[in-house]
Amino acid sequence: MSTPLHLHEDRLFPSDAVQRAIARRLYAQVATLPIVSPHGHTDPSWFAGNAPFANATELLLVPDHYVFRMLYSQGVPLDALGIPRADGSRAQVDPREAWRVFASNFHLFRGTPSSMWLNHVFHDVFGLRTRLDATTSDAYYDRITEALQTPQFRPRALFERFNIELIATTESPLDPLEHHAAIRDSGWSGRVITAYRPDAVVDPEHEQFPHALQQFGELTGEDVHSWDGYLRAHRKRRAFFAAHGATSTDHGHPTAATANLSTDEVRRLFDKVVRGVATPADAELFRAQVLTEMAAMSLDDGLVMQIHPGCFRNHNAGLFERFGRDKGADIPLRTEYVHALKPLLDRFGNDPRLTLILFTLDESTYSRELAPLAGHYPSLFLGPAWWFHDAPEGMWRFREQTLASGGFYNTIGFNDDTRAFLSIPARHDVARRIDCAFLAKLVAEHRMDEDEAADVAVDLAYAAPKRAYRL
Amino acid sequence: MSTPLHLHEDRLFPSDAVQRAIARRLYAQVATLPIVSPHGHTDPSWFAGNAPFANATELLLVPDHYVFRMLYSQGVPLDALGIPRADGSRAQVDPREAWRVFASNFHLFRGTPSSMWLNHVFHDVFGLRTRLDATTSDAYYDRITEALQTPQFRPRALFERFNIELIATTESPLDPLEHHAAIRDSGWSGRVITAYRPDAVVDPEHEQFPHALQQFGELTGEDVHSWDGYLRAHRKRRAFFAAHGATSTDHGHPTAATANLSTDEVRRLFDKVVRGVATPADAELFRAQVLTEMAAMSLDDGLVMQIHPGCFRNHNAGLFERFGRDKGADIPLRTEYVHALKPLLDRFGNDPRLTLILFTLDESTYSRELAPLAGHYPSLFLGPAWWFHDAPEGMWRFREQTLASGGFYNTIGFNDDTRAFLSIPARHDVARRIDCAFLAKLVAEHRMDEDEAADVAVDLAYAAPKRAYRL
Amino acid sequence: MSTPLHLHEDRLFPSDAVQRAIARRLYAQVATLPIVSPHGHTDPSWFAGNAPFANATELLLVPDHYVFRMLYSQGVPLDALGIPRADGSRAQVDPREAWRVFASNFHLFRGTPSSMWLNHVFHDVFGLRTRLDATTSDAYYDRITEALQTPQFRPRALFERFNIELIATTESPLDPLEHHAAIRDSGWSGRVITAYRPDAVVDPEHEQFPHALQQFGELTGEDVHSWDGYLRAHRKRRAFFAAHGATSTDHGHPTAATANLSTDEVRRLFDKVVRGVATPADAELFRAQVLTEMAAMSLDDGLVMQIHPGCFRNHNAGLFERFGRDKGADIPLRTEYVHALKPLLDRFGNDPRLTLILFTLDESTYSRELAPLAGHYPSLFLGPAWWFHDAPEGMWRFREQTLASGGFYNTIGFNDDTRAFLSIPARHDVARRIDCAFLAKLVAEHRMDEDEAADVAVDLAYAAPKRAYRL
Repeated sequence: MSTPLHLHEDRLFPSDAVQRAIARRLYAQVATLPIVSPHGHTDPSWFAGNAPFANATELLLVPDHYVFRMLYSQGVPLDALGIPRADGSRAQVDPREAWRVFASNFHLFRGTPSSMWLNHVFHDVFGLRTRLDATTSDAYYDRITEALQTPQFRPRALFERFNIELIATTESPLDPLEHHAAIRDSGWSGRVITAYRPDAVVDPEHEQFPHALQQFGELTGEDVHSWDGYLRAHRKRRAFFAAHGATSTDHGHPTAATANLSTDEVRRLFDKVVRGVATPADAELFRAQVLTEMAAMSLDDGLVMQIHPGCFRNHNAGLFERFGRDKGADIPLRTEYVHALKPLLDRFGNDPRLTLILFTLDESTYSRELAPLAGHYPSLFLGPAWWFHDAPEGMWRFREQTLASGGFYNTIGFNDDTRAFLSIPARHDVARRIDCAFLAKLVAEHRMDEDEAADVAVDLAYAAPKRAYRL
Repeated sequence: MSTPLHLHEDRLFPSDAVQRAIARRLYAQVATLPIVSPHGHTDPSWFAGNAPFANATELLLVPDHYVFRMLYSQGVPLDALGIPRADGSRAQVDPREAWRVFASNFHLFRGTPSSMWLNHVFHDVFGLRTRLDATTSDAYYDRITEALQTPQFRPRALFERFNIELIATTESPLDPLEHHAAIRDSGWSGRVITAYRPDAVVDPEHEQFPHALQQFGELTGEDVHSWDGYLRAHRKRRAFFAAHGATSTDHGHPTAATANLSTDEVRRLFDKVVRGVATPADAELFRAQVLTEMAAMSLDDGLVMQIHPGCFRNHNAGLFERFGRDKGADIPLRTEYVHALKPLLDRFGNDPRLTLILFTLDESTYSRELAPLAGHYPSLFLGPAWWFHDAPEGMWRFREQTLASGGFYNTIGFNDDTRAFLSIPARHDVARRIDCAFLAKLVAEHRMDEDEAADVAVDLAYAAPKRAYRL
Repeated sequence: MSTPLHLHEDRLFPSDAVQRAIARRLYAQVATLPIVSPHGHTDPSWFAGNAPFANATELLLVPDHYVFRMLYSQGVPLDALGIPRADGSRAQVDPREAWRVFASNFHLFRGTPSSMWLNHVFHDVFGLRTRLDATTSDAYYDRITEALQTPQFRPRALFERFNIELIATTESPLDPLEHHAAIRDSGWSGRVITAYRPDAVVDPEHEQFPHALQQFGELTGEDVHSWDGYLRAHRKRRAFFAAHGATSTDHGHPTAATANLSTDEVRRLFDKVVRGVATPADAELFRAQVLTEMAAMSLDDGLVMQIHPGCFRNHNAGLFERFGRDKGADIPLRTEYVHALKPLLDRFGNDPRLTLILFTLDESTYSRELAPLAGHYPSLFLGPAWWFHDAPEGMWRFREQTLASGGFYNTIGFNDDTRAFLSIPARHDVARRIDCAFLAKLVAEHRMDEDEAADVAVDLAYAAPKRAYRL
């Protein structure tokens, strides 16, 4: 006995009639604006090759750590879903059976952003009109899997249907960017750009660091075991990335630490790093120093800098051993910004040529540290509510806690930051709706006129990310 | 000139008409469900002996540190209320006079949970229909004190009237549990179970530790000054507690630290502990290691494990000296979970035989640490808003900050965690109302259908605690 | 094409009709109560000399670091606004041009408290009825600047028009207080009192410390390089301040640390301080010890003690060098209170002669530390949402997070804490409206009767600050 699936036109708007009416009017001005996605993790090969996605499970379940994380927390083994293991093997699972496990546990997602995103995809992308549960599992699986075999569901067609003006992917400095080149050379009009994420050659504690560093040298022809050569290699790769559309770099460090060492100090430190004898404190200091070097390079090449700090990666030792990275076991950490960023800010904080976009997984820093910092330094901007906080409540807290000191204009609009390509319209729609709802409350409480709110809403939905990321 | 006391049928529901209507419908499905109280601090002797409570002051004022804490903060000496001192003496205070002090200061509680709980008790348990203040103090005192002498106000009668399906008390491992045995043997149908709270023999910094450890040995016949004997003693007492109904253990440590020492390391550490030469760091490490040992034992005996960390006990040195423990001078501390729990989780976190329920007094950890952890590890669940946060606003924040990463199903419903027996229906009612109000907002904003919200509401009010505590 | 400027009579009230109606009724009882401003930073020379303010830019833009901070964060150089530099020089800027820069960027303040305060001033003080933007900049500048030349806009006339019953300023212990003496001797009825803020002679890391200490000795005739003389000097100046109306002291330290050293320890520490060889840890310990000494003196002279901790002053090194202190580059820090205050509280926490008012820039401490502390210790009270949190959302969070453990009566009403004299009515109005809105929600959700809410509203708006500050 299936139940209807609705996607209410007023979803996420306050039920108070005054506020809802305002929210509707504001939303009407942003609902159909093109999607600008300046930071995320989609796979450029999708758009280069334009091959069809395989089936419902491979598309929506296996790659989405938000989804299998929650199932795992309630006792579903990853092998029951066919999640790839660290050694590349996979449990022999019929994807239809895996989908049934998911469907019969879909109630676990009630109230979570995953349920909103998925229902949006089910409803709007695949035209499903009953709720997902054990009884509709097979019908879902068939409908989605069949649709994926049609031309309208190939990556480029979806890109166009989603009204994506631009999407940025994120690559390692070792990436040859051949997919981006292929997209560019294909004559297709879709704009897919890259971003420079050098963690693997910046973090001495990254499991791939020694190997990655060696490749970094081979790729650039620089002696990356000397500090000067290492810096030159970064400059070369940044230029290569910029030539493939990159307008930004991204840095995912355990903390937001930056440093400002003398050349002698940094040479001694780098020597320990390349010899593999860096202590954890050395590694932290090295990452910190490289952030400051990245800022210095941004002054020259104009790449916008993003810092995504404060995550304990691979917290679950046993799971990491069996299944590897990015399996839903990353946990946020308390994060400090005021002391951490000072070395970098002392050098470049007042330079308007630098754009440094800060993210956090520690919401206690919104009102205490981030909004006051962004509300003072010309170079600092705040990225939107990130990852665990990319949810209606998290977005609301972000606005509610950054508004007083940061205003709206030190924030940069929305990032979907996702590898779940099909959810991108849903995610941007949530962000637009929450911003409109938040603004509607300000208007309803007579803190802003509605024309001002509309200005802000349009700016946040479209103009702000283009401005911030120099697109 | 007395003022009417109302207990509005829509209390705690949003005033927005749309949300209120939904909240009412949801609440109608949970309002009369039996009370499951899987963690608390009522006195089992009440139910064993079934003696009448003495008077209004002894029942409602003297044991309730929420209440006398607030009075004390505004200058009322504890002696004016007849609070027992550390040496067992008490100021000679007429309980009626003490009640007058309370009544004339009742305005101090405006907006606090204490005022809600107390007014609920006054109205529903004692049938009072005027507000408590200086002018009604004596009438209150007489009405309550007289009622307490009647059969309907004896502990077992109230237990039944309150529709309590089960209540758990909390005892020291040294407790003979004779009251639980007496209740079991009495033929009374009320289900009163115990819980194993070994802090006094786990915390080397507890003022009773040396004496308690000695008793622990005598009681179990084990050489508790050897590490193996100490562990055997725990296993014996856990079995004894389980035989008296316990399904859980509880651990109230200053931090959430866990450890995973080698046997050699732990033997050396235990040696320092029993010789009384443990440093504060040793004591912390010992508590941490014992938590991991408790988890190991839970795999065997199935007891659910609770951690209530992060309280600075007896912060007020002068008051502690004169009045002793539990006098409203316990203050929450910033608490860390991500690093703290890793040693235990590395051993047992993926084992579905373990249920570990986490509590916090540091709300900044809800969205940052606790929900992401519980939303990943199969063994982890989140206890409800605790102690200072067991209030409408605190419960709302708990839901609002754990929903995105933890969902509803990694939380375990409500704990009253109280020694204030008469307030138990009031406390559960507040929790049910807030959950219904929270769900009503989700429904009103079209994030969930109403039938789904009703499922969740019933689960949280009744099924979830039974499932989590294996009742 | 200018747009109307409204100041809606229901601003800041919930749009829900039930709550709004209650909020209106509550507000009607507090709207016109006199302003009590027990802590702030207005300049006493304004009231002593009663000279006219110069022009719009000098009055509203140049001294307001909330305003130029936001402009600076979006790339406006401080020199473009004519902000004075550290060396006393100023860029040659036509104040009308500076005002134009401000006006054309006024959208940056949308939703911030500055926009509310400024629009209130524009509308109510200057009678402006169009919104400020580039097109109305000159009209604004002229209207304001011309008005300031009239008698009705002189400081004393505004003081009376604003219905200020009392205002406290804040002075260094080295201040001769001649303006306060002049006000007192002038026969004018306005009550302007001082407050004792000894940071410059308490903080060894203050850039003026050595010089200030020397002056402190000269002014008091004490040997302030001996610990006993230093303490005597404080007692003398405190008495002098009390004679000029002071009822409070104020302490702006990097942390809330207090200490309770033996006389020998403190003498050794002080010796290092006066010899200029104190380490940062010594400086921290010295500030901590002096806080406890200040509390001891308060027991004798009755001055209420305020602690405003947790700010990283002058975070922007380059800006500090060029423009000096108080240029919008102060950033909040994570702050701890539970351990920090214990030494002081162990000595004086239970003494009702002490009133210690705590402030914070770290909102995570509201529910975790501050409300539990204030809800227990008779000497502790909570100051209102401060600085970066002195905004509608911040005030709401303050109430929402302190209510359960602290109630209303351990809070002390509002402080404007401002040097922006003209904004004082606006700031108090915001606080009154938010308190009424918060109370209206409690009434609408049946947690409090409306007569109780009105009692609380009036207390917070008027009686509480007078009681707390012993006015």
